[in-house]
Amino acid sequence: METAEKTYNIDEKDLARLGAVVFEAYGVPREDAEILSLSLAEADIRGIKSHGMVRVPIYIDQFVNGKFSKETKLTVKKETPVSLVLDGNNGPGAVVSARAVMMTRKKAEQSGFAFAAVHGSNHFGTAGYWSEMLAGDDMIGFASTNSIPIVAAPAGTGRGIGSNPFSYTIPANKYASVCLDVSVGVMAQGKIYEYARLGKPLPENAWLGPDGQVTRDPKQWDPMDYVMIPFGMHKGFGLGVVMEMLTSGLAGAEFHRQYQGLNAKMTENSHCFWAMRIDAFTDVKKYRDQVDAYIEYLHSLPVTNPGDKVYYPGEIEAVLKAKYLREGVPVAAKVVEDMLGLAAGASADVSFIKSKYHI
Amino acid sequence: METAEKTYNIDEKDLARLGAVVFEAYGVPREDAEILSLSLAEADIRGIKSHGMVRVPIYIDQFVNGKFSKETKLTVKKETPVSLVLDGNNGPGAVVSARAVMMTRKKAEQSGFAFAAVHGSNHFGTAGYWSEMLAGDDMIGFASTNSIPIVAAPAGTGRGIGSNPFSYTIPANKYASVCLDVSVGVMAQGKIYEYARLGKPLPENAWLGPDGQVTRDPKQWDPMDYVMIPFGMHKGFGLGVVMEMLTSGLAGAEFHRQYQGLNAKMTENSHCFWAMRIDAFTDVKKYRDQVDAYIEYLHSLPVTNPGDKVYYPGEIEAVLKAKYLREGVPVAAKVVEDMLGLAAGASADVSFIKSKYHI
Repeated sequence: METAEKTYNIDEKDLARLGAVVFEAYGVPREDAEILSLSLAEADIRGIKSHGMVRVPIYIDQFVNGKFSKETKLTVKKETPVSLVLDGNNGPGAVVSARAVMMTRKKAEQSGFAFAAVHGSNHFGTAGYWSEMLAGDDMIGFASTNSIPIVAAPAGTGRGIGSNPFSYTIPANKYASVCLDVSVGVMAQGKIYEYARLGKPLPENAWLGPDGQVTRDPKQWDPMDYVMIPFGMHKGFGLGVVMEMLTSGLAGAEFHRQYQGLNAKMTENSHCFWAMRIDAFTDVKKYRDQVDAYIEYLHSLPVTNPGDKVYYPGEIEAVLKAKYLREGVPVAAKVVEDMLGLAAGASADVSFIKSKYHI
Repeated sequence: METAEKTYNIDEKDLARLGAVVFEAYGVPREDAEILSLSLAEADIRGIKSHGMVRVPIYIDQFVNGKFSKETKLTVKKETPVSLVLDGNNGPGAVVSARAVMMTRKKAEQSGFAFAAVHGSNHFGTAGYWSEMLAGDDMIGFASTNSIPIVAAPAGTGRGIGSNPFSYTIPANKYASVCLDVSVGVMAQGKIYEYARLGKPLPENAWLGPDGQVTRDPKQWDPMDYVMIPFGMHKGFGLGVVMEMLTSGLAGAEFHRQYQGLNAKMTENSHCFWAMRIDAFTDVKKYRDQVDAYIEYLHSLPVTNPGDKVYYPGEIEAVLKAKYLREGVPVAAKVVEDMLGLAAGASADVSFIKSKYHI
């Protein structure tokens, strides 16, 4: 049994406020600091820690080194009643995305549908956060982004395409929205450490070694040298190719083809967002009732092992969010301390969190 | 070594004409008979035999038994500048889809984007055929359909969701279009026969037995009793759920939830189609050049085994189509003979094919 990591259970509002104070202390305008921090807190509250507040020091480093612009002004490069091409001018991905999502939804309200392709951006966090925002309670939302090439092509021996995550959100009535959020690799690089620690063989057809051979041994190579295989081989690979063409392709940006190491700076990220009004097709309430009925159908499916359950896409994250809204978001002590350190380094006042949580 | 099955190499035009003559002889209006037959010939010419002329006797049976309407009139249930809800009134899926695709493209030409949700239809063949037609050389095309539930949910013990195939087509310049066409199961039911014949174990996590347990033994059960696992587990499953909501959901039809055997009649099929003008975002030629450049990048990726190659989505089918356009489409003798038998049964004149191919 492993030792439990020390965590604080922090109210989501406090967590988001802490991050915002830190970002603002390093020169990010208050509104943008709040947008950026909330996007990270919302990943933590869904249990997606890899995309949560753990990224604050990384982002601060990008601001300090001039990789991200502190001010984020979007430029409209092209616009029609159903389309937008936007330049994020190197703002942080979440701030660029929040603005692009608002513009996309507004246009979809007017036209029934809108699709935005965005270049000049950076890491945007979780795709599901944006597709949920696009969908609201009356639309279908879709978000995708390209990434540095980290996934092998079928038959390929090294990193070929981005993990190019994409997400659909479809609103239900009684239940949390259906929110599918997937990247095209079988599993994230970080999971190799877990398999190595547990002494479990890697799943079949999930990883190549740096020699290009499929391997199931999590200790054969340095974890960062393994190459991700696309999920469903040519199917996941094909989705990755399509997402590249929907993001950088439509945004008129360069696609990513030079793999320069997992920690290399990307020249830029491209995203795409679309939203479509449900009432362009059918009554919104009736549609959302139908989604409820499908969720209940999925829940009614017989399972192989007693105690198991069929979860619909996004359900596990929604269950965690409901729990952490009640109990606070568990955040590793180190993540909190890193933020407090950054705050201290910029003489920012974070006494509100220290006193409330006895840190 | 297995005995080669007897085949005829038939010019695609002749193949499509033969099927059309047969459909017309059983009461399908000429134009619709030609649309339906061409959709099947176009599957054969891409090497997708399971969706090719082998289906003619099955379709004739559906016409004769009143499962398909011979006349196909689409009813517009709802329309906005970007959306269409259509009722196929139980026409054959390919005829319904051809009409819906034309309406979708026309609307996209006017509005920049159009999305059609269609109910009251039947099996529409390959999704890729429709997304290619939607895309043409200046748009991005997308097609999907629901199906009877044949794919297990993760943790589920039996058939839960449809295989719900979907397809994106993105036009290139120098190369055949990028055409991703995937269903959400790891592999088709028919492949189990092949594994059993070759004595090869089934891939890991591809099939459940009727007991709900994962199995790799292709001879343990009757091939039709195996249950398909979604590709990438929750990822493919989630895509299947989303496609159900984009097809039957938006079309206002019932989703499919009662599995009544692989050969059971479906109450109806629902599809969706969308097309989006590339020039709403960027110059079409520049975009297609970028797709070419990405294809060339994929082709340049190093491979693990000498002689292997990275194929882009749709490339294998495009290579076959080019070859079969030159050499004729190889069609199993039995498939041709079945069509000739049906023609004879309806006193249709198919002498053009008998004399040319010495049948």
